[in-house]
Amino acid sequence: MEIKVLKDIFEANTKKADEIRAILREKKVFMIDMMGSPGGGKTTVVDKIIDSLKKKYKIAIIEADVSTSNDSEKLARHDIPIIQIETNLFGRECHVESSWVMKCLDDFNLDELDFVIIENIGNLVCPAEFELGDDMRVVVLSITEGEDKPVKYPLMFNTSKVTILNKIDLLPYLNFDMDEVVKNIRTVNPEMKIFEASAATGKGFDDIIDFFDKEIQKKKNK
Amino acid sequence: MEIKVLKDIFEANTKKADEIRAILREKKVFMIDMMGSPGGGKTTVVDKIIDSLKKKYKIAIIEADVSTSNDSEKLARHDIPIIQIETNLFGRECHVESSWVMKCLDDFNLDELDFVIIENIGNLVCPAEFELGDDMRVVVLSITEGEDKPVKYPLMFNTSKVTILNKIDLLPYLNFDMDEVVKNIRTVNPEMKIFEASAATGKGFDDIIDFFDKEIQKKKNK
Repeated sequence: MEIKVLKDIFEANTKKADEIRAILREKKVFMIDMMGSPGGGKTTVVDKIIDSLKKKYKIAIIEADVSTSNDSEKLARHDIPIIQIETNLFGRECHVESSWVMKCLDDFNLDELDFVIIENIGNLVCPAEFELGDDMRVVVLSITEGEDKPVKYPLMFNTSKVTILNKIDLLPYLNFDMDEVVKNIRTVNPEMKIFEASAATGKGFDDIIDFFDKEIQKKKNK
Repeated sequence: MEIKVLKDIFEANTKKADEIRAILREKKVFMIDMMGSPGGGKTTVVDKIIDSLKKKYKIAIIEADVSTSNDSEKLARHDIPIIQIETNLFGRECHVESSWVMKCLDDFNLDELDFVIIENIGNLVCPAEFELGDDMRVVVLSITEGEDKPVKYPLMFNTSKVTILNKIDLLPYLNFDMDEVVKNIRTVNPEMKIFEASAATGKGFDDIIDFFDKEIQKKKNK
C-alpha cells in the first residue's frame, strides 16, 4: 500500500512536470530548478543572476522554504515577480512538487517572461526525486561542505546539468581540495558543467551569466 | 489514502521509538541523534567526542548516509562498534527511522555500552519528523550556513536540546552575526543549550565533552 501510494505521488508529479515542459516550450520560457544544501548560497547566486540579466530579460522567481519568506524579501529590491512557497503551511514538505510550480506559472504572465528560476528547499536529498518540468537543474555546492557531497548525494548530482562551486573566496581558510570535488562530481556525472564562483565577491559570475544568457537565447530560438 | 499511509508510517515509527527508549532506560545507555545540513561537520564533531570519551565510556556509532560509507571509514581508527546505514540500497530515504535503529541496537551488545551516537543523514528537514528513541537531539549548524537557518527549519531546532555552532574558526572570514543566530535559535527554542565550537581546531570542545560526560553519568545513575 505504501509503495503504491508513493508510486502514485511520483507518477502524478511527473505527469504535471511534462505538462509544464510543454507549456514552457510553447511560451519559449527557460526555467531552472536551483537546488543545494541549506546555507550553500542559493539566494545570493539567484540575486547575482537577476542583477546581471534583468535588463536584458524578463525574469520571475519561485522561492521555496519550509518556513519564513526571508529569501523573497532579500530579492524584493529587484521589483520582479516573486512567489514564495512556505511548506510549513501545508505539511512541512522537504521539496517542491510540480503541481505547485504549475500554480505559480498560472499566476505569472508567461507571454511576458523569458526566464523562471525556482529556488528549491535547502536539501540535497528529496528535491532530486521530483521533476518540475524545468530545462535544467543547477546545484549550488558551497566548498565549506566538503569534497564528498557529490558521491554522498549521487541522485542530486547525477540529474543536474550544472554545478556552481560557491564560496571560493573561503578557499585560503579551508582544507579543501578542488581537484577532489571535481573528480567526485565527474564520478557521478561525467557531463556536468562546473563553475567555480563566489556569490559574495562576484568572482566567476561572468562565465555563469554568459552561460545562462546563451541558454535563454537557445530556448527562444527553438 | 496518502494521508492514512503517512499517519501509519509515523505511528509505527513512534511506537518503535518508544520501545527503544524503554530498552535504553533499562540498559542505562545514553543515546543522541545528531543532525544537521550536509557538510556542517557532524562527523568531525563525532570524531572529537569519541576521542575525548572513549577511554572513559564504551561508545558505539550508527552512521547514516544516502550513499557511501565515507563517514564510517573516517571513524574506523577508533576501533569501536560502528554500523553504516546506506539508504541508497533501500529507497534512498532522506532520514533515519526507528526500526533501523532498533536493528542496529540488536547488533550491539547493550550490556557493554554507555553511549550511542546516531549520525543522521545530512538534512535539516526530514530527520526532524522521525523520533528515534534517543535521549536528546543535537543539531550541528555550521556558521557558514548563515544566521537564519533556525527560523527556516524550525522543527529541527524546536525539537533539539543542543546546538553546536560549528566552524567558528572561519568567523573572521565571514559576514556572520553570532548574536543574530543565537536570537534566531531562542526564537524557536528558548531552552536550547548552545555551544560555539570548531571541530577543526578543537576550540569549545572542553565544554561539549563535559556536557555529554555529565549526561552519560545522569543516565547511568537513573
